[in-house]
Amino acid sequence: MKKTVLREYAKLIAQVGANVQKGQEVLIYAGLDQPEFVQMVAEECYKCKAREVTVQWMYQPLEKIHTRYQSVKTLGEVKQWQKARLEHYCETKPCKIHIISDDPDGLKGMNMAKLAKARKLRFPIVKEYSDRLDGEQQWVIAAVPGKAWAKKVFPGLRTSVAMEKMWEAILATSRVNEDPVAAWKAHNADLKARCEYLNNLGIEKLHYTADNGTELTVGMIGEAMFCGGSETSRQNIVFNPNIPTEECFISPKKGEAEGIVYSTKPLCYQGQIIDKFFMRFEGGKVVESGAEVGAELLETLLNMDEGARYLGECALVPQTSPINVTDLLFYNTLFDENAVCHLAIGRGFTDTIRDCHNKTLEECRQLGINESMIHEDFMIGCDSMNIDAICADGKVVPIFRNGNWAF
Amino acid sequence: MKKTVLREYAKLIAQVGANVQKGQEVLIYAGLDQPEFVQMVAEECYKCKAREVTVQWMYQPLEKIHTRYQSVKTLGEVKQWQKARLEHYCETKPCKIHIISDDPDGLKGMNMAKLAKARKLRFPIVKEYSDRLDGEQQWVIAAVPGKAWAKKVFPGLRTSVAMEKMWEAILATSRVNEDPVAAWKAHNADLKARCEYLNNLGIEKLHYTADNGTELTVGMIGEAMFCGGSETSRQNIVFNPNIPTEECFISPKKGEAEGIVYSTKPLCYQGQIIDKFFMRFEGGKVVESGAEVGAELLETLLNMDEGARYLGECALVPQTSPINVTDLLFYNTLFDENAVCHLAIGRGFTDTIRDCHNKTLEECRQLGINESMIHEDFMIGCDSMNIDAICADGKVVPIFRNGNWAF
Repeated sequence: MKKTVLREYAKLIAQVGANVQKGQEVLIYAGLDQPEFVQMVAEECYKCKAREVTVQWMYQPLEKIHTRYQSVKTLGEVKQWQKARLEHYCETKPCKIHIISDDPDGLKGMNMAKLAKARKLRFPIVKEYSDRLDGEQQWVIAAVPGKAWAKKVFPGLRTSVAMEKMWEAILATSRVNEDPVAAWKAHNADLKARCEYLNNLGIEKLHYTADNGTELTVGMIGEAMFCGGSETSRQNIVFNPNIPTEECFISPKKGEAEGIVYSTKPLCYQGQIIDKFFMRFEGGKVVESGAEVGAELLETLLNMDEGARYLGECALVPQTSPINVTDLLFYNTLFDENAVCHLAIGRGFTDTIRDCHNKTLEECRQLGINESMIHEDFMIGCDSMNIDAICADGKVVPIFRNGNWAF
Repeated sequence: MKKTVLREYAKLIAQVGANVQKGQEVLIYAGLDQPEFVQMVAEECYKCKAREVTVQWMYQPLEKIHTRYQSVKTLGEVKQWQKARLEHYCETKPCKIHIISDDPDGLKGMNMAKLAKARKLRFPIVKEYSDRLDGEQQWVIAAVPGKAWAKKVFPGLRTSVAMEKMWEAILATSRVNEDPVAAWKAHNADLKARCEYLNNLGIEKLHYTADNGTELTVGMIGEAMFCGGSETSRQNIVFNPNIPTEECFISPKKGEAEGIVYSTKPLCYQGQIIDKFFMRFEGGKVVESGAEVGAELLETLLNMDEGARYLGECALVPQTSPINVTDLLFYNTLFDENAVCHLAIGRGFTDTIRDCHNKTLEECRQLGINESMIHEDFMIGCDSMNIDAICADGKVVPIFRNGNWAF
């Protein structure tokens, strides 16, 4: 891929994605696959006058080895200095840039139950800090090709060709064209307009149906609103957390979901695949589930904590989205969740509550925002999906017809 | 390179180099060049029952960017959480494994004066911890090929061929043969025997001469001893800090060096080259210096602090060493210092003092061990080098003749 194009992409991530502020610290989390590109992003952050950019390199094979050889106690430990670092982040509110390139199968065979135990040990300690940081930081997830990932998405091609195709797919769906900043401005305006329309309907429930058997009703929080595209931190800084993004999303009311929903694309959780699965809800809770691939992992996920069986997100994405149009399966949530409609189990987003910056986390949760250590998106959209809004005034308004916006 | 051979090398680093102990933490510092090998080393550490292995990845281009864009204040800062981490290391005494692969020219053009200022800010803060850790940890430096490094050492060859040649050179000089553990046992025994001979002479001064103009006399500390090969930490753990190593070395007495010495190989300091240089000593101190390449950088080095102009090490390596026999210039101290005789300016080694584990750092320094934030080796050995030991009993004993051991 041409350096000038990559430079535009790096700029987009730093300026539009993270919107790095003068004097701010920046944390970049990246795989070892594209160090030259990570370097470009770091440089663009510095050009935004970042005070300090720190790159935390990730390497999946090491994750596997750590999980294999460390005790649950060690894996689950948060050391004093790590707490001090979290404290530092709470005080300085650095922005976070995730540059993902992971092999979707990269953690295959890892002991997920062991890791889950460790996460449970760590969670209550880390939670104090993440609650304090909730909504305070800008963050962005964007992607670059990794060799194994490219080969997974383009299995028939030579590695070098697959890598080039992968760059093309990432850059096209991320709207890195002649003027990415302008493209993102227009795209954000479109998403905001759709959200505004939805938020003026006074939706009480969403009713999903599709010819694969999906038949689900989900209750909305009165104070919640559909969000999409850019977000605004409590520091009043506008940022784009996902590059690409195509969704209008909302966090539903904990305890109000009835019916059954079938997945339409595989879910890749920490390098392992769950596919062809369903969940049945009663009183908002998953009371039955099954999967043709990764059923055990799905169970592990659902048993992570009490909130893991409740919904955290309903997201609307038309079948005509640029990602779905590529007809590629990315085996990665950032892309696949932006291909079609999806739900998420686990943690809800407090910032989908109106005026959330003047509410405490506790107040948001009392309104019905779900709480969990996980947040896992899974795709339910398909060409036959219809969604109706059941509104406070009794009206039923078509939102989706045959997988696309009905308005 | 064959995986089985690399596995032997990884074992050598973990077992013989670091000698990782059950329950110990391990810190691995590595470039991005050979992640699969780093993974092997991590695995071998875990097989030694390491509690936790942490890999800190390094990437030279980022170092350059950080130095360019961060303020001296930011570069020189040690944050509260970083102090807490240093405190953790003081308490847990992790062993440190450096897997180097850096491009010798990788930091060319970096503002070394700015970096020196930052190091000066950081040094007094970090010093407290490094003094406490002095001699407490096992550590080892070993090498793997990086593309740019391989191309520098084998400039005529294609990258893939240069990489293979580089692996061969590293593994051969590191004694990774059929039974590397046995080879290192024999090699350590030889180095120990030479040190014992030297330590029984009662050397007061070393007198160096060579036909390139070198004519230098260096005073020894009565309580000091020649060391070589394996070392023993204050925790009584035997380890091999350098793979490869060929030297018998000692820290000389601060303030006792008279004469002039000429370099015989380039010195690569933080990715920049200093070559064809000399230093003239009076009262132990460099009072005059010059270089055909990198004169300014040499000055920066010598001006790092008061101790930077005094000697920290005298090391004896015969011209017949396996590294010198390869006839390669590695542009890297780990190899080049083990090719021929060398000196170092800057910090001396307290563990060259007899019974040092029962002496305080302060006592060691009062005996004449130099103190500095730097320790830079430079090569002075050549085929015409003669070294005499001037002993306490008045005898003059030949140590080196024509670049090789005289005993």
